[in-house]
Amino acid sequence: MKKKDFRNVVTRYKAVFFDAYGVLKNHKGVIPGIEDTFDFLIQNSIEYYILTNDASRSPDQLAEVYHRHGIRTITSDRIISSGMLAREYLQYKIKKGTVVYLGTEASAHYIEASGLNIVAVKDVDINDLEHVVAMVFLDDEGFVWSEDINKLINILRMKNMSVIVANTDISYPVNKHEISIAIGGLADMVEEIIGKVFIRFGKPDAQMFMFAYEKVLEKGFIRKDEILMVGDTLKTDIIGGNKFGLDTALVLSGNTIPEQAAVKIASSGIIPTYICDSVLVN
Amino acid sequence: MKKKDFRNVVTRYKAVFFDAYGVLKNHKGVIPGIEDTFDFLIQNSIEYYILTNDASRSPDQLAEVYHRHGIRTITSDRIISSGMLAREYLQYKIKKGTVVYLGTEASAHYIEASGLNIVAVKDVDINDLEHVVAMVFLDDEGFVWSEDINKLINILRMKNMSVIVANTDISYPVNKHEISIAIGGLADMVEEIIGKVFIRFGKPDAQMFMFAYEKVLEKGFIRKDEILMVGDTLKTDIIGGNKFGLDTALVLSGNTIPEQAAVKIASSGIIPTYICDSVLVN
Amino acid sequence: MKKKDFRNVVTRYKAVFFDAYGVLKNHKGVIPGIEDTFDFLIQNSIEYYILTNDASRSPDQLAEVYHRHGIRTITSDRIISSGMLAREYLQYKIKKGTVVYLGTEASAHYIEASGLNIVAVKDVDINDLEHVVAMVFLDDEGFVWSEDINKLINILRMKNMSVIVANTDISYPVNKHEISIAIGGLADMVEEIIGKVFIRFGKPDAQMFMFAYEKVLEKGFIRKDEILMVGDTLKTDIIGGNKFGLDTALVLSGNTIPEQAAVKIASSGIIPTYICDSVLVN
Amino acid sequence: MKKKDFRNVVTRYKAVFFDAYGVLKNHKGVIPGIEDTFDFLIQNSIEYYILTNDASRSPDQLAEVYHRHGIRTITSDRIISSGMLAREYLQYKIKKGTVVYLGTEASAHYIEASGLNIVAVKDVDINDLEHVVAMVFLDDEGFVWSEDINKLINILRMKNMSVIVANTDISYPVNKHEISIAIGGLADMVEEIIGKVFIRFGKPDAQMFMFAYEKVLEKGFIRKDEILMVGDTLKTDIIGGNKFGLDTALVLSGNTIPEQAAVKIASSGIIPTYICDSVLVN
Repeated sequence: MKKKDFRNVVTRYKAVFFDAYGVLKNHKGVIPGIEDTFDFLIQNSIEYYILTNDASRSPDQLAEVYHRHGIRTITSDRIISSGMLAREYLQYKIKKGTVVYLGTEASAHYIEASGLNIVAVKDVDINDLEHVVAMVFLDDEGFVWSEDINKLINILRMKNMSVIVANTDISYPVNKHEISIAIGGLADMVEEIIGKVFIRFGKPDAQMFMFAYEKVLEKGFIRKDEILMVGDTLKTDIIGGNKFGLDTALVLSGNTIPEQAAVKIASSGIIPTYICDSVLVN
Repeated sequence: MKKKDFRNVVTRYKAVFFDAYGVLKNHKGVIPGIEDTFDFLIQNSIEYYILTNDASRSPDQLAEVYHRHGIRTITSDRIISSGMLAREYLQYKIKKGTVVYLGTEASAHYIEASGLNIVAVKDVDINDLEHVVAMVFLDDEGFVWSEDINKLINILRMKNMSVIVANTDISYPVNKHEISIAIGGLADMVEEIIGKVFIRFGKPDAQMFMFAYEKVLEKGFIRKDEILMVGDTLKTDIIGGNKFGLDTALVLSGNTIPEQAAVKIASSGIIPTYICDSVLVN
Repeated sequence: MKKKDFRNVVTRYKAVFFDAYGVLKNHKGVIPGIEDTFDFLIQNSIEYYILTNDASRSPDQLAEVYHRHGIRTITSDRIISSGMLAREYLQYKIKKGTVVYLGTEASAHYIEASGLNIVAVKDVDINDLEHVVAMVFLDDEGFVWSEDINKLINILRMKNMSVIVANTDISYPVNKHEISIAIGGLADMVEEIIGKVFIRFGKPDAQMFMFAYEKVLEKGFIRKDEILMVGDTLKTDIIGGNKFGLDTALVLSGNTIPEQAAVKIASSGIIPTYICDSVLVN
Repeated sequence: MKKKDFRNVVTRYKAVFFDAYGVLKNHKGVIPGIEDTFDFLIQNSIEYYILTNDASRSPDQLAEVYHRHGIRTITSDRIISSGMLAREYLQYKIKKGTVVYLGTEASAHYIEASGLNIVAVKDVDINDLEHVVAMVFLDDEGFVWSEDINKLINILRMKNMSVIVANTDISYPVNKHEISIAIGGLADMVEEIIGKVFIRFGKPDAQMFMFAYEKVLEKGFIRKDEILMVGDTLKTDIIGGNKFGLDTALVLSGNTIPEQAAVKIASSGIIPTYICDSVLVN
């Protein structure tokens, strides 16, 4: 598969969905030059949204990172996080009662909703679970792992309830060479130990793409194959986009390094429509 | 959780999604009395759709089974099968070339589309795969397992292509006591052996529910929590409905027998909104 | 399957292997009356060994628990722990260099051997891994989970080395109602995240039984089917014993409660030779 | 890791265990020149055994292949197959009754034993399972897959019994470019569908190595680290040998091609003691 220039690729579409980390950002921060990409999209009347597996920060906080780098065109209404799907789930399914969460206090804003009482795992009284109706995994920070994960397991053993994992990623990069376990990785461990079935939100699951597609449709009808999904990871961005019916572009600025792209595509059978070096247009 | 009467439950909703096998049909055929259920829904202006993991027969053929039992109210436009999602995928993603399938000739109708050449695995020339662009698992019948599955594996090793599994089920009942391996079970084996990632359509995946929800929306706006998903299987119907934001009713007329319902709910953590004996309204 | 009296069962054998937790001990400590069981075995010249998935304490420390309860007949040479297999592995395979461990200082005694330098994960200099040759998961205590597990993952990403998990259990009981994640559960999470293959020691793996069988053979030849494995867990004790060729007795004093024994045997297909209430002989 | 000459490597050991396919044989038959390897071993008084995941042919039939190529030094008593472990299991655990098998009639010789009645799946009367006590997966040939695998599944649903898989391999090469599903792959599919736990024999499981080690010990004591395991597959031969405490040599004449060896070792974390081009000594 020959590499294509992102500028030539994206102009074939009416809308584009971007993954964030490895595409617009990396361990050093926002990738220099992507402001030109968004100016180019606006000039060409191409809609854009950012789809991110993240439930640790609100869309406002996520947009703030771009604003600090002078990119005002990425507004919070253009950011779709897996935390927003968790919130939607609670709105539809949990009308009242106590929802327990694992994560920081900041991450808990995702599950604040009328009728619900929000409590961190560490503050739960394990002898009084009567009003507890759901558990949400939000962030890998904000708690003592050994204490709170074990406490969470025993809560789930004592009371049957819905369990939501607001980020499917099992790890995330912390700098050029190091990674950290993500909340999805902790949730996988807990699920294995207690043998129950959790509800997960985030790419590659179709609901993430549907949520973004509905936003696009609000501005006028676009067919799925008029949208391009751009990501650096075959197993989340590309397979998810493909399955939903979108065209897909793999960029080599993050998780998939240039030397390994061909091997990874061949061994996984996950085939992007295009391969581009990055989303830079200059 | 106390059992509720289906009549009292369903009247709280504006639309209802039914699983087919174990809910409307069983090993003896259409369950006697369900014609009254559909009459009741029509009288109460409740929309209804049938969501079935099946890519072996067309919606027309699936509707025909109900018609033969005198139930004219189940028309083919109310039946949503996982095969239809596979077809939609091909329409969006595969514009031309040869699509290879495993299944009966009847099942191949799902993947007939303009621009595509449809060939059964047994008719593929393994030395000329140049135009082959996708593989679809449709049905467990219509081929010699030992020959065609091994041939399919070698095709996939020789040429990288998208692989679609049009039914996630791993087995299906053939009579009161016996089951048969479904095409999803064969696909799982092949995926394990060649180590690639296949694209699967069918409950509990969100795309199945989204496809049905879009049909509902065509007739006017309904919120997700105004829809009831009715099924006999926790791990497909109920978890899928829950995750999509629907209310759910587990019926005890199929896969989940009355004595085991409480244990299965507790051990899986998959909690339906209601439990009903069946969908009968009399 | 009818329950049998343990006294009548065990007298058919020349040797007996016991699981510890749920068989000889429970959350309250050593089960009252088991001293009579060991006196009975000695009177009847039946050899006995205890096989335990534990790498947190030495055989001496494990025996000490029984001694404190006045049971002097359980000496440390009769206790076989999965930690001993990890030690044997290091003796055969790692002749020199630094071995990194996760666990308490007490657990590290298992991997002390001539020629090896033993270092806790927290004390590793991640910028100087030249002499690091192996990693061992020993105990879930003795370290800060969030810090040391993430550090361990990055060590394994930077340097390829053998990874040994000295206890296959994913959880263990801490009191009548609560469990805690075991080191095997943490290791499973790490293995999933970094995608490598770890070496695990402990039941149901054959090496645990082989280690005990070799001890038996030192005292004279006994056929495998002259040995009885006694345990409370189908998926470790019973399947492991069965596969090794031993007869097996499931006791209902621990993990498998009387009401569920028949269901668990039927659903797992793991069939013990006998079922007994407990190992008590009076 | 630098490649070493096999002649220089093997002379450091008192015994050597060989994998068969990819090491001594390939798709064209016995690899030319390996007769010299065995002459060299005999001259240097190095013991040798062949460990093969195969339950389709008897040790005599397996040895016959080498004899036809003029290699008389590979006698049937030096061949250890996973089928022999299945036979040993039945001898210890199944004293009487009917054992059902999937495979060819030739493969059934492995499970012939006094007291047992041996019946192919296709000849079982599914309405009379009273005397059926075990099921054995032997070979992927000798039966009609769609009929007999579905029948086998229903037998296992109707009667709880021990299930033995006499070959852990999921696929095997049939020529230079093509593979075929092995009996282990079919067994994995059945296990997933019925949700029971099967007993598997074959590399990398420790019992295979223990069986060979006991044969070595009959001729005099040798420490485990005085034995070299030679194989072409990291995930069976090398990890199995390593875990058992043997030194290991990866040869590049089969499954692991020279260009990929370093990548596969790094990504799997399975590290052989040596890498050699082949077992040829000239």
